[in-house]
Amino acid sequence: MADAAVRSYKPATSKRTPAGGAPTAPHTAAEASDPRIDVAAVTDLLLGTWGDTRREAREMIKDPAFWRVEGMPMAEHRERALSQMHLLADAGGSRRNLPEEYGGLNDNGANLAGFMELVLADPSLQIKSGVQWGLFGSAVFQLGTKKHHDRWLQSIADLTLLGAFAMTETGHGSDVAAIGTTATYDPETEEFVIHTPFRGAWKDYLGNAALHGTAATVFAQLITGGVNYGVHCFFVPLRDEDGAFLPGIGGEDDGVKGGLNGIDNGRLHFDHVRVPRENLLNRYGDVAADGTYSSEIPTPGRRFFTMLGALVQGRVSLDGAATTGTALALHIALTYANQRRQFDSGAGSDEVVLLDYGKHQRRLLPLLAQNYAQFFANDELLRKFDGVFSGRSDTPEEREDLETLAAALKPLSTWNALDTIQEAREACGGSGFLAENRLVGLHQDLDVYVTFEGDNNVLLQLVGKRLLSDYATQFRGKDAATLARYAARQTAGKLFHGAGLRQLGQTVADFGSTARSVELGLREDQQHELLAGRVQQMVADLAARLRPASKLSPAEAAALFNQNQSELIEAARAHAELLQWEAFTDGVNKVEDAGTRHVLTWLRDLFGLSLIEKHLAWYLINGRLSAQRGGAVSRYIDRLSARLRPHAQDLVDAYGFAPEHVRAPIASGAEQARQDEAREYYRALAASGTAPVSEKSLKKK
Amino acid sequence: MADAAVRSYKPATSKRTPAGGAPTAPHTAAEASDPRIDVAAVTDLLLGTWGDTRREAREMIKDPAFWRVEGMPMAEHRERALSQMHLLADAGGSRRNLPEEYGGLNDNGANLAGFMELVLADPSLQIKSGVQWGLFGSAVFQLGTKKHHDRWLQSIADLTLLGAFAMTETGHGSDVAAIGTTATYDPETEEFVIHTPFRGAWKDYLGNAALHGTAATVFAQLITGGVNYGVHCFFVPLRDEDGAFLPGIGGEDDGVKGGLNGIDNGRLHFDHVRVPRENLLNRYGDVAADGTYSSEIPTPGRRFFTMLGALVQGRVSLDGAATTGTALALHIALTYANQRRQFDSGAGSDEVVLLDYGKHQRRLLPLLAQNYAQFFANDELLRKFDGVFSGRSDTPEEREDLETLAAALKPLSTWNALDTIQEAREACGGSGFLAENRLVGLHQDLDVYVTFEGDNNVLLQLVGKRLLSDYATQFRGKDAATLARYAARQTAGKLFHGAGLRQLGQTVADFGSTARSVELGLREDQQHELLAGRVQQMVADLAARLRPASKLSPAEAAALFNQNQSELIEAARAHAELLQWEAFTDGVNKVEDAGTRHVLTWLRDLFGLSLIEKHLAWYLINGRLSAQRGGAVSRYIDRLSARLRPHAQDLVDAYGFAPEHVRAPIASGAEQARQDEAREYYRALAASGTAPVSEKSLKKK
Repeated sequence: MADAAVRSYKPATSKRTPAGGAPTAPHTAAEASDPRIDVAAVTDLLLGTWGDTRREAREMIKDPAFWRVEGMPMAEHRERALSQMHLLADAGGSRRNLPEEYGGLNDNGANLAGFMELVLADPSLQIKSGVQWGLFGSAVFQLGTKKHHDRWLQSIADLTLLGAFAMTETGHGSDVAAIGTTATYDPETEEFVIHTPFRGAWKDYLGNAALHGTAATVFAQLITGGVNYGVHCFFVPLRDEDGAFLPGIGGEDDGVKGGLNGIDNGRLHFDHVRVPRENLLNRYGDVAADGTYSSEIPTPGRRFFTMLGALVQGRVSLDGAATTGTALALHIALTYANQRRQFDSGAGSDEVVLLDYGKHQRRLLPLLAQNYAQFFANDELLRKFDGVFSGRSDTPEEREDLETLAAALKPLSTWNALDTIQEAREACGGSGFLAENRLVGLHQDLDVYVTFEGDNNVLLQLVGKRLLSDYATQFRGKDAATLARYAARQTAGKLFHGAGLRQLGQTVADFGSTARSVELGLREDQQHELLAGRVQQMVADLAARLRPASKLSPAEAAALFNQNQSELIEAARAHAELLQWEAFTDGVNKVEDAGTRHVLTWLRDLFGLSLIEKHLAWYLINGRLSAQRGGAVSRYIDRLSARLRPHAQDLVDAYGFAPEHVRAPIASGAEQARQDEAREYYRALAASGTAPVSEKSLKKK
Repeated sequence: MADAAVRSYKPATSKRTPAGGAPTAPHTAAEASDPRIDVAAVTDLLLGTWGDTRREAREMIKDPAFWRVEGMPMAEHRERALSQMHLLADAGGSRRNLPEEYGGLNDNGANLAGFMELVLADPSLQIKSGVQWGLFGSAVFQLGTKKHHDRWLQSIADLTLLGAFAMTETGHGSDVAAIGTTATYDPETEEFVIHTPFRGAWKDYLGNAALHGTAATVFAQLITGGVNYGVHCFFVPLRDEDGAFLPGIGGEDDGVKGGLNGIDNGRLHFDHVRVPRENLLNRYGDVAADGTYSSEIPTPGRRFFTMLGALVQGRVSLDGAATTGTALALHIALTYANQRRQFDSGAGSDEVVLLDYGKHQRRLLPLLAQNYAQFFANDELLRKFDGVFSGRSDTPEEREDLETLAAALKPLSTWNALDTIQEAREACGGSGFLAENRLVGLHQDLDVYVTFEGDNNVLLQLVGKRLLSDYATQFRGKDAATLARYAARQTAGKLFHGAGLRQLGQTVADFGSTARSVELGLREDQQHELLAGRVQQMVADLAARLRPASKLSPAEAAALFNQNQSELIEAARAHAELLQWEAFTDGVNKVEDAGTRHVLTWLRDLFGLSLIEKHLAWYLINGRLSAQRGGAVSRYIDRLSARLRPHAQDLVDAYGFAPEHVRAPIASGAEQARQDEAREYYRALAASGTAPVSEKSLKKK
């Protein structure tokens, strides 16, 4: 099988081979006696369920008109992003999710898969598209009803109507329920009066608000008949045809940001702005002409979360875009590391390729493993999203699982993106700091992904609360003896429903005869036991520490919870890491080609072991690993890194990026050409007999 | 004593109190029954030995002409930075280090202390100043002799001569010894011929090279009489009066970078460019008219390191600037965290101040502790630098110690800067992403500090090798019995000479009656024992693993070393952490005011415990901490964070920044004013009796 894989493999690097025909990567799997991956098959695996749409999007953005221009001043960048949006809409990229009657494909998964790839062109384009179609358009589509769809969906798709998504306020970011903007119903005129009562209630950080938006979907506290029915969404025109604010509306430009400067973020405020009653996007709550409020969802809390949940696609998209952006950074850094030489080893005259350094393998390869895990996890998230939004599996439980899964994965992938891009930039030294090599721009643009669409820590706290409530559900009505029995076998069995843990359905073949005994104790099933056991125990410990809360005053209970906030977030992170590991494992176990499966299993092991190493102190303190096995974890990671080193180029080639996606000169083969030229210079100089001798050799004489 | 401190304390926050007179920080030490710090005294402590010069520099940069303008396009930013340099030179800021005969103060410590502060104005100004005076000027001053000083020092100081420091090449960053540029002596014309033999030998990433430099100090392999005497430095004119390259010289603009775009970085190459023999900066090596080479330093290796060592001030400066930049980020994030409210706690109607969240304390306060440690460590480094460069303690041992200390501290402080600025930016949410709030710009500018002036990993590897060689020195000529005895008491005593460990000279008073027994085991002397013991054992373990190298072939020895490269770097990091901890401890122990000493001791404990928590797995695996004590470390950190919370504003006020240094609107008191306005709105609304009732309360009826 391994041989077959080799024979069928056409090196993806060949497209970057410089004119001279020398291979760009001097250290390839072909040089090793190990099995190797089928690069094309792994590309299919990574692109996942909607691979065709992704390929289509990637093909489109080969056009330089879509590319980020480094150092472009903000004003020009904003206009460029807008023009790219029009190109995208013209290419049909803006309506994959819409029903057929609005010219769409009714394909929610494909829609997000296509948008995620835009991060390769310019993250500003990805996010501005997200603002227009994923937030503003989705608010109309998901929170509105047929009259709204008929009126606005077409013009939103074709960009004759550009809009802002006015949810966040200067004074309220992630805590949407507490926003200050009010929408008070006036039965006399059958209008809502949108009003900003104080400076902290200005809408803020809104894409399309500074310049391009002519309308907004505004979230406000709906008040009718003297009762506040909570946050609802209203369609509010903002600007006239000349781009001037309509009466009662004001705003400010947010100005320069750390990145994403192709998007015109701004602030908005409303001074008793009146909109017709019909402008309430009334899918989940409505107001009759006489002011009577009605909703199919009786509980205000559930109604609020249902409305917000309808907009979950932002988090799903960010998870995917962060994953793809991370892949680009790894492609650049590992390709360069495979060509760049620095310092001789002391063992000969030739300088050492960066990726041959132990430290360089250690700093980059675990990040590669992690990124692979993110791809598999994102595809799972995307499938769950598609299931719910297509209606195929649209149950309250599935919706809740989808939201929990998105809230778990988005924080990890966006933080991983920043960590990985930064490590990649540093691994490329001064070249990594040049804008042309893309890494600094990627970091700048993706920076805000960790705090928008739900701050990462806030999202993980939500996940943590879900874990606690699932845990509590297990024991509702159970007696003390059951609880004690449970405590005795905490690592066994499925604990959390839904977006939770799964049992491994199979034992895994033991690859390779060189496995050492200690490694045998760190294989797939033990990794799963360690990772899952940690989540279970962390949640159980938290539940135990929080149990007294029910007997405390609200203030004391809040203080107790606050004391455990960091641990709750850590438990949620552990859960999300487990989900990524499980998705990676499921993906690997589906692979049929033995060589591919062999190498990807090493990579999955590297991911699993890196997680265990990161939390090693916990495993040791909690008696899950002995000091001896604990010490073996790091050594096993060193060995896995060395084993994977010859496969590094194959593994980043498998991302399937074309030169038009990479664009970084240091990953273009230019570095290899420079190295070859320098070595040839010294070779010819030595052969000429005219080379200066070293001072050292002189002294020896 | 604590009471006295309170009485003598005038709140530094008062200068930022908004017009209404309300305090900007709602949670102050004054509210707590705990002791509190004397803010002004702590400012003195942090500003250190050259506090007067720092204050002078801070006063100068209150002028908005020195400030970074967010979003300014590269071309304008470059001209602005140049104009700022002229302002700086006119203010006398460019010659503090020069001898009196050149109009200077002959004060090396003050010189660097003044430059470090420029990071608050615009890091581009700090680094462009560093290029002109710290690198180009220092090369002439430190590597040249009187004829060079007489000819160029004045015009370098007053900016009639701007220059590039042409060391780094596209193909060789940190490995300077391997650069490709040649300087071949021609006795016929008594000239050196400077030549770039291949593309990888182009000089690259050079500040002042793209536009402003009219000359450069060029590092090249000196070849005379057919012998290569290694890297030397030459003064090479670059441009004519119109800014055009002189014959034989070419170059390119490096273009947009991830930050520091006020500096015109560029590339240079030389096609047989001839300079007079006198242009060799000949302090450490000279060539006679007939081509005979001479040097006071016979060994090529030592000569090379002496020349490079003369330029150590770059690393010292970066350590200080990174420390000050980190302080600015913490000032902004903690001031905001002390005013901003988000989410109610569930215990009442009021929203919670960010810094009251357990997670928020956990994410920011250990970084504050770490930054304090950096200040104390940098002052120690600066004093050592001043001692050597003033000639007061200029011995080969002191020079080597200085270089090791700089190589240890610069990596930690620059990495800490990036980590802290990023955490600060995330802790400020969307506001943190706006350029006006400074955090993103700081991250962008300081990014390259971790890889220039010596890549951080390369520097730590140098430190690691020094630790190994010091270790070996201990045992030279010792018999097996001595070694065995040594192994039995590895944590005792002073192991490494010079920039190494020190014994604590005193036991420390036991503050506070609430100390728990487990905390008693984690006080000052135990922290030192744990941190120092780790360094000692890591080095000993490495030495043992590397011992077989002497019996291996060069290639096998190189492979063995490479397998241990990560651990060597980790050992060096542990050493540098210990140095920071020791400097912090020495600083705290000098404090006389009891309240200040009390709070700073908590902060030092937080730093020490955070280091131990970071490496907890190591301590557990190596039997240095039991699982029980290991588990207590995190709980103790939680308690220390809560204890330090009321002091957070005092501790960042003690940085002594004026509003002209901070400039971030979110740390100006505007957030407090917004919060006050919103709360007053809701209070008045409730009092009016016209507030809408909640839907929930309606259902209860």
